[in-house]
Amino acid sequence: MNGAESLVRTLVASGVDVCFANPGTSEMHFVGALDKVEGIRAVLGLFEGVVTGAADGYARMSGRPAATLLHLGPGLANGLANLHNARRANSPIVNIVGDHATYHAQYDPPLASDVAGFARPVSAWVHSSLSPRTVAADTARAVQAARAAPGQIATLILPADTAWLEAESAAAALPVLGSSPAPPDAIARAASALKAAGRTAVLMRGDALRASALDAAGRVAAETGCRLLCDTFAPRLDRGAGIVAVERIPYFAEQIVEFLTGLDSIVLVGAKPPTAFFAYPGKPSWCLPDGCDIVHLAHAHEDGPGALAALADALGAYGPPERTPFVLPELPTGGKFNAYSIGQAIGALLPEGAVISDDGATSSGPTLAATMTGRPHVHLALTGGSIGQGLPLAVGAAVASPDRKVVCLTGDGSGLYTPQALWTMAREGLDVTVVVFANRSYKILNVELGRVGVTEPGPKANAMLTLSDPEIGWATLARGFGVEASEAATIEAFADQFADAMRNRGPRLIEAVIG
Amino acid sequence: MNGAESLVRTLVASGVDVCFANPGTSEMHFVGALDKVEGIRAVLGLFEGVVTGAADGYARMSGRPAATLLHLGPGLANGLANLHNARRANSPIVNIVGDHATYHAQYDPPLASDVAGFARPVSAWVHSSLSPRTVAADTARAVQAARAAPGQIATLILPADTAWLEAESAAAALPVLGSSPAPPDAIARAASALKAAGRTAVLMRGDALRASALDAAGRVAAETGCRLLCDTFAPRLDRGAGIVAVERIPYFAEQIVEFLTGLDSIVLVGAKPPTAFFAYPGKPSWCLPDGCDIVHLAHAHEDGPGALAALADALGAYGPPERTPFVLPELPTGGKFNAYSIGQAIGALLPEGAVISDDGATSSGPTLAATMTGRPHVHLALTGGSIGQGLPLAVGAAVASPDRKVVCLTGDGSGLYTPQALWTMAREGLDVTVVVFANRSYKILNVELGRVGVTEPGPKANAMLTLSDPEIGWATLARGFGVEASEAATIEAFADQFADAMRNRGPRLIEAVIG
Repeated sequence: MNGAESLVRTLVASGVDVCFANPGTSEMHFVGALDKVEGIRAVLGLFEGVVTGAADGYARMSGRPAATLLHLGPGLANGLANLHNARRANSPIVNIVGDHATYHAQYDPPLASDVAGFARPVSAWVHSSLSPRTVAADTARAVQAARAAPGQIATLILPADTAWLEAESAAAALPVLGSSPAPPDAIARAASALKAAGRTAVLMRGDALRASALDAAGRVAAETGCRLLCDTFAPRLDRGAGIVAVERIPYFAEQIVEFLTGLDSIVLVGAKPPTAFFAYPGKPSWCLPDGCDIVHLAHAHEDGPGALAALADALGAYGPPERTPFVLPELPTGGKFNAYSIGQAIGALLPEGAVISDDGATSSGPTLAATMTGRPHVHLALTGGSIGQGLPLAVGAAVASPDRKVVCLTGDGSGLYTPQALWTMAREGLDVTVVVFANRSYKILNVELGRVGVTEPGPKANAMLTLSDPEIGWATLARGFGVEASEAATIEAFADQFADAMRNRGPRLIEAVIG
Repeated sequence: MNGAESLVRTLVASGVDVCFANPGTSEMHFVGALDKVEGIRAVLGLFEGVVTGAADGYARMSGRPAATLLHLGPGLANGLANLHNARRANSPIVNIVGDHATYHAQYDPPLASDVAGFARPVSAWVHSSLSPRTVAADTARAVQAARAAPGQIATLILPADTAWLEAESAAAALPVLGSSPAPPDAIARAASALKAAGRTAVLMRGDALRASALDAAGRVAAETGCRLLCDTFAPRLDRGAGIVAVERIPYFAEQIVEFLTGLDSIVLVGAKPPTAFFAYPGKPSWCLPDGCDIVHLAHAHEDGPGALAALADALGAYGPPERTPFVLPELPTGGKFNAYSIGQAIGALLPEGAVISDDGATSSGPTLAATMTGRPHVHLALTGGSIGQGLPLAVGAAVASPDRKVVCLTGDGSGLYTPQALWTMAREGLDVTVVVFANRSYKILNVELGRVGVTEPGPKANAMLTLSDPEIGWATLARGFGVEASEAATIEAFADQFADAMRNRGPRLIEAVIG
């Protein structure tokens, strides 16, 4: 077998069975090897941000890494923004990046670049194979690095000749370096903090936000009266009826400060202390009250669910948690058409087990509110703040979870960083419904402009924030990519279209014209 | 004035009067400053690859740097692929990248990343300002670095507080570090090589490929019988009737070897020795014949046109050069519809002074051939091999050269990396005609698959190279972005549509369905 086949066989042996790909010439042997090896599914993206965002969505839903296949430095570069988001989500991903043949690099041909340099800012592990004989071993190490708790990005750079030259064999999977148990004294410290007088909260991230772990957190809350919190951009949160609810930290600095006012101690489970997303003149960056005690129950690489269970035991918290009641919003049948009424309609119609890929910025808050007591579902947030995550993430979530309905909330601004994801949805027949909040603006920037102190923006400034002139026809774009699409300008039309999308399978886009 | 205003005033003072922008919250003060300062035009791109590719096109046509305005690490990352192409084109560009406020970075908020790390692989100069008081001086240095011969990428990272805090003043422009004269002994060596017996060639790049410099090269050729060559991906070439013609080095390794067979010496003017774009099993990387002498007349940072003029003088080459005759191809009126007949139609109709932004990969060769003796025009190639350059480059070329018709050749594959450029064409009313060769395939990869030795690709491999299932409706996409568009399925329809586009101004897309 050649190096490429040893790569693919090792990926499969290591439990990687999906490859999101946008290959080029230097990756042709890997592409050729896909047909020689059973057990790996290749999904084509027409832009690398689709490929990396899909790998992130796949990891968040499956808990396992997908591989990406990318074409040299610029191909990797096009995928970096969503790798930044994936890094912030602690999603395991194995990037396979082709490069020039080892002996060809000396000529500095046009596509040559510092591939490792591009990879480093997003990768916990970077390696270039220099021989086909080490490709299999390097691949096994890359998968192990990606799966190391809490999940990391591993980038393996493979010169083209390591793919086409003869290799020895595939490599066996290496042990998964899973999460470590939280130390007993951390559990004791957290228990003691929560038993003390004063107002307390538990801020969770990672697996601690799955329904079963939230049950333990709920018992702790029932016993101690602590609040249960998650980050504004928690990578994944199970929520809805029957699941213990957590409060999401708001976005703006001054809102966070108010939200946390009076807190005497905060227990962290896989999370960092809450701070502002951006700095603003005269507004705080650090958002905890003065003197608030910070207790680390579990770091991100430690076992958050296990720590919560141990904490509940240590507190003798055996009573039932308060689980979210099942209350659906009314399906709106008239009135204004805006993010609020759209949220009501989505809340009323979202099916059980759905996945929300949320890249809706200013528009998705009302949907979050309206789904809070709805049918249980999964919420995936924009972890790294780099817009353009929503559509690719939905692709990956749908590949990982073919039995779930995926709903992608995006804006006419954010969606335009990676619209090519629509084509992959069409090709793969993915069960994704995309809702585009078409407000004809970078709405968040209109808000931020004033907040940073630009009080009377002139016409040039306003032009930088406005997406009208011309308006973007999202339904038209979707049809160009082969996705069934419709426009809604009233809440009745939206509700009809969304209900229809929920009843049927396959990709679908609804452009909600609220601008 | 605040730091942001000192930035914009210094840019204008340094001769930078266009800013291609995709700003976010950390750049809002810079956006606000655009209205406070006369003399800078801001052009919005809805994806950063559009922004950086446009800056490249602007630089190639104007010879001056534009600024880009990008949002932290991920925003810069989205622009890296076209910055790679710009680096290979030696295009001067000043990237302004916002970052978190200096005091905010310690909290590692979601959008924090190693911005300088992302910048380094493409930037000759990288600097982070740490005080509003140095922003003006740092900006002047950035522009100087970008303009240093032969043109470089300078990246200035500006934490948000350096924008909003008080600065002292703008800075004056620093001297431009222009090209140095080629040393006299280099001219003597080149003259001697070209006078010697044997077959010789002059390989040129950069300003040496402008019409006036080519005139000197043409006199050298008339005197010595040398061939005149340019790289496959020369950043900019003046060509057509009345201009001295150069032969373009072919793309594939074995073609290059054949093309250069028998050469005894090659004189380099701002170019490197010709090598293969990719390595292939059993094919050469180094493409010059054994024993071929390499003479550097001028390095890339040296004055190529001056060196050619001095060389002509040293050779006593005062006779008139052979200039390209004016011969138009016949406008095809029937027969097959393919890249060849499309090339004929473009060749017949392309107006004088047009700019061709060429991202057409396998499809644009016939157009190059058919325009060789046509009305004089400018050709811009895919310098770094990272597809997705063509549409953004056309945006920048049109902004720099409002009196020229810009024709963008792209494929249904390559165009999809940066289709958002169409929106900027619509917003700015740019005079760009886009021809999409819709062959429903990554055609070049179908060719390369066999060339690298994958002889019987299976269904998974084929799926990675095919853009049908579903087909991409390029005309539909263009309409979604607000650009007038049409489809052509016959050569008559194409010729009619292209003729109409040449007669009228404004953005226009023609989807040539040849798949």
